[in-house]
Formats: sequence, structure tokens, C-alpha cells
Amino acid sequence: MTLKPGQRAQDEVFMARALELAARGLGWTSPNPLVGAVIVKDGRVVGEGWHTAYGQPHAEREALAACSESAAGGTIYVTLEPCCHWGKTPPCTSGILEAGIARVVVGALDPNPLVAGRGCALLREAGLTVDAGIMEEECQHLNETFFHFITTGRPLVVMKYAMTLDGKVATRTGASRWITGPEARARVHRDRHRFGAIMVGIGTALADNPALTCRLEGGPWRQPLRVVVDSHARLPLDAELVRGARTIPTMVAVAAEPQADATRGHRPSTAPAGTSSHEAREARAGRLAALRRAGCSVWVSPPTGSKTAVNLPALLDHLGSLGIDSVLVEGGPTLHGALADEGLVNRVQAYVAPKLFGGNEAPGPVAGRGAALPSDGLHLSPPAVTVLGVDLLLESEVDPCSPAS
Amino acid sequence: MTLKPGQRAQDEVFMARALELAARGLGWTSPNPLVGAVIVKDGRVVGEGWHTAYGQPHAEREALAACSESAAGGTIYVTLEPCCHWGKTPPCTSGILEAGIARVVVGALDPNPLVAGRGCALLREAGLTVDAGIMEEECQHLNETFFHFITTGRPLVVMKYAMTLDGKVATRTGASRWITGPEARARVHRDRHRFGAIMVGIGTALADNPALTCRLEGGPWRQPLRVVVDSHARLPLDAELVRGARTIPTMVAVAAEPQADATRGHRPSTAPAGTSSHEAREARAGRLAALRRAGCSVWVSPPTGSKTAVNLPALLDHLGSLGIDSVLVEGGPTLHGALADEGLVNRVQAYVAPKLFGGNEAPGPVAGRGAALPSDGLHLSPPAVTVLGVDLLLESEVDPCSPAS
Ligand SMILES: [Zn+2]
Ligand SMILES: [Zn+2]
Repeated sequence: MTLKPGQRAQDEVFMARALELAARGLGWTSPNPLVGAVIVKDGRVVGEGWHTAYGQPHAEREALAACSESAAGGTIYVTLEPCCHWGKTPPCTSGILEAGIARVVVGALDPNPLVAGRGCALLREAGLTVDAGIMEEECQHLNETFFHFITTGRPLVVMKYAMTLDGKVATRTGASRWITGPEARARVHRDRHRFGAIMVGIGTALADNPALTCRLEGGPWRQPLRVVVDSHARLPLDAELVRGARTIPTMVAVAAEPQADATRGHRPSTAPAGTSSHEAREARAGRLAALRRAGCSVWVSPPTGSKTAVNLPALLDHLGSLGIDSVLVEGGPTLHGALADEGLVNRVQAYVAPKLFGGNEAPGPVAGRGAALPSDGLHLSPPAVTVLGVDLLLESEVDPCSPAS
Repeated sequence: MTLKPGQRAQDEVFMARALELAARGLGWTSPNPLVGAVIVKDGRVVGEGWHTAYGQPHAEREALAACSESAAGGTIYVTLEPCCHWGKTPPCTSGILEAGIARVVVGALDPNPLVAGRGCALLREAGLTVDAGIMEEECQHLNETFFHFITTGRPLVVMKYAMTLDGKVATRTGASRWITGPEARARVHRDRHRFGAIMVGIGTALADNPALTCRLEGGPWRQPLRVVVDSHARLPLDAELVRGARTIPTMVAVAAEPQADATRGHRPSTAPAGTSSHEAREARAGRLAALRRAGCSVWVSPPTGSKTAVNLPALLDHLGSLGIDSVLVEGGPTLHGALADEGLVNRVQAYVAPKLFGGNEAPGPVAGRGAALPSDGLHLSPPAVTVLGVDLLLESEVDPCSPAS
């Protein structure tokens, strides 16, 4: 790629604008990426567009449709390589060719290794000038979630918790409400909207009875899927999560049904063989049926070796298969610990409140088995710090080469 | 106080310079405050000085001695009200009068309520113009430790710990070394120099065998008193702290000697009455004598009600009586918890490393009994954030109106 002097600087100005436009779709495009496009003729912007929501036209189509004059002979800036396959909409490469665009400036290539570069190649073959990789890092960062999802088939897992400056998520008596202030809570509500799903463990569902909805002014907000990891199907029918399940999609993930043989082998047979386990299975089936009748979807985990727990990698695979690109895990410590132990965490959001609870018995944010040696722990990126009222938000990416991963 | 237009701005310029000079004494003046002084004639600085170290002349004397011409008719800017009593040196008010200074600009008044304002009054009575309260907040903040010490008679207690982003100070196996990186460790060494004493609990002394010295290039550094809270006198003679006790002052704080009667009353008398407690007292006396012979000072706590523990308020009073104005408490969780439970913590320094240990059994930084309800916890100021390599330092003041205090 050879550019005239000064052209790269100009390209970056327009690509930065395309990035700004792309970000407007935040929370609405999942599982599609955020994309922005700007069409320029003789140094003037003649059209702008972005992918506004899943199912809506792609950014390139939006920008072309918004042009104040013919786009023929112009340059299109687009944050992500234009698609060249038929999806919900015709390929953007066709639209670009039909409009008579002369030059295409691309931020990031398509992250799917099977199609990366194809859109650019098709446009080049058609005689257009194509410059790719302008502000590539920024364009990739914008769609980190999308890139993770496309390359792994699993949602990006963000572990979120609110703790005191001494690392407690509750007092010794278990009281945990209102650790952080209104600014931090508003941020959590805004963040929920950006995720494909919100996940909690059954302990948190029982203790806090949360609704896990996005409750902000200025809606309507897309409500993400709510997932409760509830190995033994203990979620009561009057829980907020179940009560709202007819209007907001809600999934209860339960452990594999205990095997009658396995149960018999592990128990002293004081009762008639198989009876108690049979009754337990009946009771569980009844609870699952009631949850389904209340509007929840129930996902039964495949077995996990010796443990009677939800197979978390399988749950993430399942969510991925549903098109869920990102999961915000809001606790509690048991679920966080299980995810950390299995190396399934991609990002950490630690809200830190200027309080000190103390207490040997007061819980920290991440339980589980944990690392044996400091070098066995998850390695994180240096935290990005955001001040939210009197609280701090510390955000780190998990180093994918961490030992546990 | 009426000032000519523009005079306040000029006053603030010279007071800011005096503050800069004062800060040069950081770590050397304890238990004296940091003080800086600037002498100005016709808008020109003719002399500067600061209190360089405990036992050395006061800032006003230093500035007068450094004058490049006669100070007569000039203005002296001094960050703290000049003393008017004989201490280790003659009162500064006398020096100012002898030099023929015409105007005195004072930052903060003497924090000791018994003498506050007396220096200014004396100078005013002698006919000088005295303006007090210029940059008062900055001048007070510079000597926060001194002000706390003077008004309470106890050292300022700073609780310091290094934890992971999930609030762990060690893994589940107790491994805790190298949680933070070199920049954070260098900062700890530099901070140690600024404190009157460094304190650890016996658990940390046994687990880490720390020297607690200031080991930085560019010394010599003043070595603070090292204090081990060691209720049952378990500190071994080959511990680093004991081995260095002949060159660096080291105090072992032990619990009150168990009362023979009290012991008998609480134990089933399977042994001849009083024998085992008598043997235990003999053994303890032997260990204390050995610690003293090794160069440690031993402080025996007054009793603490039902518990066999060091009376921490009494220990702080004792340190205050020795002129120790500040204590950096470097752990472990048990000592931190005991201090927090008693409301004895004035400031928190939390180093946060970008790691995640996890683990239900991995310890957090502050144990003890802890708060029952979130509102019972210590209230902290919004943390000041310092980036140290990949680590963060979060510093908060404890709200003196916190419930536990
Ligand atoms: Zn497209
Ligand atoms: Zn003085």
C-alpha cells in the first residue's frame, strides 16, 4: 500500500469518524459487529452510516443510502472489511460496486479466517483501489467481543463484581447491597444492555433476588438473556427472574440428571435400592417442568466427570450456538471461582468502593479452588481505571496465556 | 486581614515556594513538622530555608542564616506558625524580631490548641504585620501526620497491603511473595523511610521473615523503628528482625503476662494447680530475656479484658510517648483486622496487582471480626490512584466519623 504524502493523515481523520459512527450501534448489533462507514468525495463527507441494529442494513448500505450526491468516483471508509456473501442482506461489495465507488479504505479485515481478505480481493479484482489496515487496532478493539465470538464460537466472558477496598463483596453476615454508589450502579445497568447475556449463580439469585434488567432512563433498552447457573434446580418460582421470564428471556442451566447407577454406587443403601434417588429425580423433573411452564428455558448440562455441577465450557458453547456473543457474569463468588478455575474468564470488571468491611468470614469476590502459587494465578492486563462518583472501576483483560487457561 | 490588590497572588507564589522547601525534609524531621521559609525584600527572594532534620535549626532560622543581604524590613513566608517557646532551639519569634522583619505571612497555625495563635500574637504585639492562613489547607496537608500526632498523642496509622484484583493477599497455600512488581516495591521502600515505625504481626514475621528496612539506592536512609505485635513472644532469635536489632531499633510488643489466678479459673486442673501456667510463665520470661539480650526492646501490654492479646490502643499511646508520629502497618490480615475492628486505622494504602488468585481459602487483606452491616464498615475517602508499573496504589483516608472509630 503506497499512499500520497498527507493521505494517511486524511485517511485517519475519516476512519476515526467511521469509528465514532460505528460505536452508535453499541448494544444493538449483537451478534453482528459494530461497523461505521463514511463516503468522501474531493475531501468532503457526502454520506455517513452505521450498522444500527441486528437485522438492519450494514453500515456501507446505510452510508450509500444517506449520500447527499452521487457516490460515483468517491472513497468509502469502513471500519470492517465489507462482506461479500449473502446473509440477511445482499453483500456490501455489490452495493459498493453498483455505486461506482473508486477507492475503499478498510480498518480491520474480517476476523473469520475463512473469509478474511475476500471482500478486499473481490473489490480489487473489480478494479477498485483498496487500502486495508488503516487504524486497524482501534477497529479491532471496537469489536473485541465479535472477534472473540467469531474465532472461538463462545461468548466473551466478563466477570463483574463490586468489592470494598479490602476485597470484600459482603460483610460477615452476608449483607452486600449498596456497596457501590449510584454512578457505579448506573454504569452496570448501561453495561448490561451491551451484553448478549447476564449470568448469575444460584447463590446470588437466592440471596439478592435480582431482576438483572437494564433499568435506565432513555430506553427502550434491549434486554439481554438472563442465565442462572442452578445445578440442583433450586430457583423458586416466585424469584424475580422467574416472574419476569415471560417478557425477558430467562435460562436456567442445571446439572446433568444424576445417574441412578452412579447414585446407587456412591450411597450406602439404607433405603430400598434406588428409591430415594428415584424420588429426587422425580422432584427435580417436577421443578424443571414448573420452571418451563413459568416461561424459563431449561438447559440440562452434559455430565462433568465426578462432580454434580453444570459443565461450564458446555454452557458457553451452548450460548455461543444461540448467537450470544458476550456474557456479563455478576457473581457470586462460587460461580466466579468456578469460571476462574476453568480458565473461562476473558475480562474482569472490579468496582471498588471506598469502604472497609474487614472480617475473616466476609467473602471475597472469587472463591473456587484458586491458584496454589502466585505464578498459577490468572495474569491480567494493567487495569484501566474509571472514576464513578466515589467508586472506581478497574477493568483488566485476562492474558490468554494465563496458566489456568 | 486586608491585602493590597495583587498581594494575595504574590503571597501565594512565595508560600508555594516555602511549601516546596518544606517537603525537602520529608522523612527526616519526625516527630517535628515539615516547615519551609522564604524571605522576600522588594519582591526578590533574599533567603530560603527549611527544617532539614530533627534537632537541626527551624526553617525560619535557616532562612535568616541563608540571607544574601540584611533581612531587615523584609517579609518572611513560613508554612507553619513560628514557635514562641524554647525547645531544642531558641524560639523562632525571637529570631524574626532580632532580624528586623517587618511582615510575617503564615500558612497554618500551630495545631496544638494550647499554643495555636500565640506565635502570631507575640509578633503582632511587637508591631509586625502578621497575615495568617495563606494556603492554609496545603500547609496543613503537608503535615497531616504531625497534626494528627499533636492533637491525639498517637501516631497516624497507615494500613498497607498488596492484593490481587480479586482481593487476595496470598494464594490458598499461603504463598504471597512478589504479588506486586518492582515499581510498587520501590515505593514501599521509599515510604518506609517516611514513617516513625513499621509494624507487622507475628504471623507475617514468621511467614515472610521480613527485614522491614528501607533498602533504596541513594541513602543513607533513616531506618524507622520496627515493631512486631507478638502476643505470645513467639518471634525466634534467628528472625531477620531480631538479627538486625542491634543496628536498627526493634520492639517486640507482647500481651500482658497471664495471671496465675485467671489461668487457673479457666482451665480444668488436670495438672497440679498452677504448675503448667507457672512453667509457661517461666518459658515466656526466658524468651523475653533472650529477645532483650539480642537487642530488642520488649513492651509488655496492659491487660485487654478477657483476651490474651496486645492492647493496641495502649501500644499506640506508648509509641506516641516515644515520639513516633506515624506507623506503617504492613500486615498481616490478623493485625489489620484487629486495628480495623478497634477503629485505629487512619489511612489505607492498597496496592493492587493485575492478577487473579481466586480460592475460597485464599486470605484477604483484612481479617478480624469485621462489620456486620455495610453501614458498619469503615468509610473511606475516594481513593487517590497512582499507577506504579503494572500495579495500582489506591490510597484513602479513613473518615474519622466511621462507625467503628
Ligand atoms: Zn455487509
Ligand atoms: Zn521554631
